[in-house]
Amino acid sequence: MQHLSCSDNLRNLLITIQYDGREYHGWQIQENALTVQEVFQEALRRIVGEFRDLKGCSRTDSGVHANMYCVSVKIAHPIPAERLISALNSYLPDTVACLDCREVAPDFHARYDCKGKRYVYKIWNSAVRNPFLNGYALKYRYPLDVDMLNKAAQAYVGSHNFESFCTADKREKGDMVRNVKMFSVEREGKLVTMTVEADGFLYNMVRIMVGTLLEISQGRIAEDAIPDILEKKDRAAAGVTAQACGLYLDKVFY
Amino acid sequence: MQHLSCSDNLRNLLITIQYDGREYHGWQIQENALTVQEVFQEALRRIVGEFRDLKGCSRTDSGVHANMYCVSVKIAHPIPAERLISALNSYLPDTVACLDCREVAPDFHARYDCKGKRYVYKIWNSAVRNPFLNGYALKYRYPLDVDMLNKAAQAYVGSHNFESFCTADKREKGDMVRNVKMFSVEREGKLVTMTVEADGFLYNMVRIMVGTLLEISQGRIAEDAIPDILEKKDRAAAGVTAQACGLYLDKVFY
Repeated sequence: MQHLSCSDNLRNLLITIQYDGREYHGWQIQENALTVQEVFQEALRRIVGEFRDLKGCSRTDSGVHANMYCVSVKIAHPIPAERLISALNSYLPDTVACLDCREVAPDFHARYDCKGKRYVYKIWNSAVRNPFLNGYALKYRYPLDVDMLNKAAQAYVGSHNFESFCTADKREKGDMVRNVKMFSVEREGKLVTMTVEADGFLYNMVRIMVGTLLEISQGRIAEDAIPDILEKKDRAAAGVTAQACGLYLDKVFY
Repeated sequence: MQHLSCSDNLRNLLITIQYDGREYHGWQIQENALTVQEVFQEALRRIVGEFRDLKGCSRTDSGVHANMYCVSVKIAHPIPAERLISALNSYLPDTVACLDCREVAPDFHARYDCKGKRYVYKIWNSAVRNPFLNGYALKYRYPLDVDMLNKAAQAYVGSHNFESFCTADKREKGDMVRNVKMFSVEREGKLVTMTVEADGFLYNMVRIMVGTLLEISQGRIAEDAIPDILEKKDRAAAGVTAQACGLYLDKVFY
């Protein structure tokens, strides 16, 4: 098969998938570790052959899940978008599902055109494990005061420099200001869910926001400390990075 | 350690557990296959040493889950029942949780004293898989008319000879009459849940009841055929045995 070149008349597709991240080392392809991108590309290649400019909407860490993850990719193959959904579901492993596929403008880019994202973080808050949530939620045995945490978390909302909430050695160049639209902490029985929506996220930002709230719950960080932590622009001022297993990319906005 | 004998002054305990059955070949211990009983006994032995008369409330098939499963066992060890819960949770694998432990009368038997059980069967009813329900629900792509199935399933309710709903080569000796207290079919989005409660169940009874309803949905068995199938007392008259992965022992009544 010939390699596709920019001058070919290519279709640009936006493909939405969902995945259980337990067995994957995140989205982005890498040597010697299974990634979602690798199994996705393999399925796509078997259906459409050559493709170009395959772009995921974000990196995700090892063990992180996605209720919704978006990929843009250019292909020459004439398969109708609707049929590509079922074809992908035939070739993808049980841990990845294709939910949608549509034609988009030639210059559409799954990452650069993303206007915002929503993440969910699940915590099984009980002294006794839930055998059905292994790898699907953080196990946390100490009491969580959801009302207090929800109140404390409102300090995240708004446009702030989130440098304190970014893993230091992966600091991105340039602007570290992000606009957090909402942050909620809710309980349904023993399951506590934190939900955060922003125009963008720094590396590990959600996991550090969650870890900081857990340290607030333990009394190791003061309830009203989040504005100070933001002000310090210092990773050491924030709490620990909460485990990956509770994190779900929940929605991608374009 | 000395073996416990009947003449020892033994405590009789009722222990309630919960398990994800995906990696287990059911409850009952067997050679060359991992079972829940094996990992449970191993954890118990590390805490209390010798035990006697360990009895599970029922056999469960390979891949079947339990939201609630009960075990009776005699021990001499003086550990308080409450502390045994957390000790068991320390030694059990992540896929099994101990929920409760209490002292019971010396002659109490988890299986013989069981007055009834409730099972739940989960079906992910969609053309697109749910990556988070692998091994936790049957995947079923064709439309399910929940109202029709719920109506048809009411023919299961009552005292009937369920020989047609028992895997033939595992037919139990004696009475094959069981009293089904309720059977419901409900939908929540793409998840269809069948719930059945009875004083007891024959081997594979729930899975054959579910398989029969799925064949009714496909038009391969008539909507009003269940009374005739019961009447025939012939396994061949009923539908297929639905996969184990959707089945949960949900509650055990004493």
